[in-house]
Amino acid sequence: MEAIPPLLDREIRVIDLSADYRLRDAKVYAEWYKELHQDAENLKHAVYGLPELFGDNVAGARLVANPGCYPQTAILGLAPLVSHGLIELTGSIIDSKSGVSGGGRTPKLTFHFPECNENVSAYSVGSHRHTPEIEQALSAVAGKPVSVIFTPHLIPMDRGILSTIYSTPTRTVAENELVELYRSYYEGKPFVRVRTSPPATKDTVGTNFLDLCVKVVRGKILVFAAEDNLVRGASGVAVQNFNRMFGFDERIGLM
Amino acid sequence: MEAIPPLLDREIRVIDLSADYRLRDAKVYAEWYKELHQDAENLKHAVYGLPELFGDNVAGARLVANPGCYPQTAILGLAPLVSHGLIELTGSIIDSKSGVSGGGRTPKLTFHFPECNENVSAYSVGSHRHTPEIEQALSAVAGKPVSVIFTPHLIPMDRGILSTIYSTPTRTVAENELVELYRSYYEGKPFVRVRTSPPATKDTVGTNFLDLCVKVVRGKILVFAAEDNLVRGASGVAVQNFNRMFGFDERIGLM
Amino acid sequence: MEAIPPLLDREIRVIDLSADYRLRDAKVYAEWYKELHQDAENLKHAVYGLPELFGDNVAGARLVANPGCYPQTAILGLAPLVSHGLIELTGSIIDSKSGVSGGGRTPKLTFHFPECNENVSAYSVGSHRHTPEIEQALSAVAGKPVSVIFTPHLIPMDRGILSTIYSTPTRTVAENELVELYRSYYEGKPFVRVRTSPPATKDTVGTNFLDLCVKVVRGKILVFAAEDNLVRGASGVAVQNFNRMFGFDERIGLM
Amino acid sequence: MEAIPPLLDREIRVIDLSADYRLRDAKVYAEWYKELHQDAENLKHAVYGLPELFGDNVAGARLVANPGCYPQTAILGLAPLVSHGLIELTGSIIDSKSGVSGGGRTPKLTFHFPECNENVSAYSVGSHRHTPEIEQALSAVAGKPVSVIFTPHLIPMDRGILSTIYSTPTRTVAENELVELYRSYYEGKPFVRVRTSPPATKDTVGTNFLDLCVKVVRGKILVFAAEDNLVRGASGVAVQNFNRMFGFDERIGLM
Repeated sequence: MEAIPPLLDREIRVIDLSADYRLRDAKVYAEWYKELHQDAENLKHAVYGLPELFGDNVAGARLVANPGCYPQTAILGLAPLVSHGLIELTGSIIDSKSGVSGGGRTPKLTFHFPECNENVSAYSVGSHRHTPEIEQALSAVAGKPVSVIFTPHLIPMDRGILSTIYSTPTRTVAENELVELYRSYYEGKPFVRVRTSPPATKDTVGTNFLDLCVKVVRGKILVFAAEDNLVRGASGVAVQNFNRMFGFDERIGLM
Repeated sequence: MEAIPPLLDREIRVIDLSADYRLRDAKVYAEWYKELHQDAENLKHAVYGLPELFGDNVAGARLVANPGCYPQTAILGLAPLVSHGLIELTGSIIDSKSGVSGGGRTPKLTFHFPECNENVSAYSVGSHRHTPEIEQALSAVAGKPVSVIFTPHLIPMDRGILSTIYSTPTRTVAENELVELYRSYYEGKPFVRVRTSPPATKDTVGTNFLDLCVKVVRGKILVFAAEDNLVRGASGVAVQNFNRMFGFDERIGLM
Repeated sequence: MEAIPPLLDREIRVIDLSADYRLRDAKVYAEWYKELHQDAENLKHAVYGLPELFGDNVAGARLVANPGCYPQTAILGLAPLVSHGLIELTGSIIDSKSGVSGGGRTPKLTFHFPECNENVSAYSVGSHRHTPEIEQALSAVAGKPVSVIFTPHLIPMDRGILSTIYSTPTRTVAENELVELYRSYYEGKPFVRVRTSPPATKDTVGTNFLDLCVKVVRGKILVFAAEDNLVRGASGVAVQNFNRMFGFDERIGLM
Repeated sequence: MEAIPPLLDREIRVIDLSADYRLRDAKVYAEWYKELHQDAENLKHAVYGLPELFGDNVAGARLVANPGCYPQTAILGLAPLVSHGLIELTGSIIDSKSGVSGGGRTPKLTFHFPECNENVSAYSVGSHRHTPEIEQALSAVAGKPVSVIFTPHLIPMDRGILSTIYSTPTRTVAENELVELYRSYYEGKPFVRVRTSPPATKDTVGTNFLDLCVKVVRGKILVFAAEDNLVRGASGVAVQNFNRMFGFDERIGLM
């Protein structure tokens, strides 16, 4: 938020890969990021750059806040359900598993090979900063407040995120009805693949695809969402946003 | 169930590491294991060998059904809550992550190194055979039917299971109240460690410990349970059962 | 060798990724592969498809034997030295480390995740079939018989081969002299990168590059050669051969 | 070397796991460790604590320099050959592969999970500090100067070292003759296992065993040596030394 105002002043359009402009509300930002936001003015105009949901806004944006890696799996995983009022808006559970590159490249004991290899654990339970980002986007889709329980886990692999999502339906739904809903909701979105069996992160490595699968198990709706955090989860979706901002086919450079 | 009747006939006491005698009801067995049970007679007398909950029964048992790897994390994770009526008995979510040795030693494409390395995915969604085993034990603890949603995932590591469990409380509870409950519930149980931060599977490798942590997040109760599937999840708890059956301190050979 | 004769009869040009046509001498084939060669006729005309060394022959070939993964590292690693008579032609040591995908996709206990993860061992000591392939190509470069000691090792990773090669010089040589030799030898070869520090396999993953580094240590010449066995070691070099056979720039489809 | 003199002054016997007292010659120390030795007085009396070779000296030692992880594989791998004059004393090649815990617990980019996972590379080529330690011990065994080429590699696993060693025999030798030599040389040494097939590091994990295998390939002698760097390579052999220093069976606490 220090680097960007001068760029915007010079009429340079910006795609920001940091988390600085993702949350619309500076108070929410301060609450989760534990510091005051320094650029409330531009924050108002920033567009949340999840192209499958907000692609029209991206096209005309001066400042795009590139979305977080985890949030994309959760938001695209739940958007069809919340947009159709099919699930309760409170209490969806997002249990996410991420490879170690999601933690960045700065050496820390947590990411030291003998510490995280052959190991699985949850972290930032109840306090991960991607929680309000997920809720903000889903609330925008629902037109009403949405709240979630988000629990990230560190997995001994380089790259890849799998989110397993559990929601309570508002009415009885059949699995094939949901599969059809997902297919039609993402029709014409080349980077979302709706599958009938749970996706494996390895199928998405090196690509901008986000793979989804929806199941009904004992009265709950389960959604599985997989992506490569280093492509779809960051730079890939930035290229996709760039393409939309400058009038290119959104697939250019990504297939 | 073919090998065991002749042993029992010769008055040899048996600890069975297979799944054959874990489910009390031959009909439930047939439904989940897709074959008829061949030894309904002995099934009636088998004791489910989870020593922290059913240790007195184990002591006098002729036939102990050694518990499954996943179920131990789920059952010991939820037992304090269901025994005190603190959670709704329907709809708890058990999201489990297991190392590859949990799948056995027979080579299969699923466990071929380049297939499961650098990869995470869910499997047996809604159909894993450990589901009725978890429900049977928790129902025994609750005195009422308990049902759960159980989703196992394959993780690229040799050994270790982490279960992340989400339950809905029946009344408002404070986290420290729950921590105290878990501590008193497992007092005198040397292999259950109640921790205040989420456990890592690596801390349990090579041991018979099952590590638990309970948290309250946005009105849900979260329980984290970690173990080494090759020790606590199988042979270790068998030794623990053996010790109880033959009057030894249950820690002999396991510390 | 069953599938290919009918294709050649129909004047279809063939790049064979199997090992069937790599060894010119059917007797050597029989000795190492423990079966008789069935197509001695076409064997005579097959071209060994290592484009950096035999690219002119590839251009006009009807049948190209695509080279093995290990041999490419050893042959390209030693070719500058043997072609200039700088090393003794007997006794070079090729100590190779390969990811598990080099062993193919058929499930075997050796490649079962819990067997090969967290493990390193040598295999096929003194008997690996790539030995005569390495010697045949280096002998062609030297114009005299070359023999080597080749020891492959299985490493717990998906892909990548690193060969560490030790040779005895025939005269005193300086390291910078050798670096210059390698640079000039591979000038104009876009897929061989001569580096001044030992290469890491990860730098080559997903590419057709073969990275080389030459060092002098206590009177021995050490060569380090790294590649991705799934690209450079197999299909990538096949595309490179295809480009040469059909008159395309050899980089097409590979950058 | 700062902590130890006061301990010795108080007549406390010391097993030092650092590298400070491993090299007898302060000049060699300065050359490889790039700093002056501060305690030349005690250096003279330090015993190199490789119990299979220098166990009698260990028994009476006031100061034991616990050996390095790599050197133990190289020294025990070559000792039977040099002690019998069976190999040339110059030019043996030690190609070692180590898990990441060998690099210590301090976070560094080199050991950051996404850097070293799915990767293999050589490091410290020609300059690793364990080189003079290997040479000093083998020279003591031979009674003449021994020099080696030592090349360590970093492997994506937690623990384990495999050294593949290549030597030139001074006369024609048969493989079975060598196997017998190794067996008799290590008779009565409970932690050295002579095997007939190349050892896998995983077979030694969690143990104080050092597994050896000797082969003859095309006129060279190959030795494979595997150990767990965290037990045999450090603390395990320290316990073994302790047992010898205080008159216990050397296996106490290690089986």
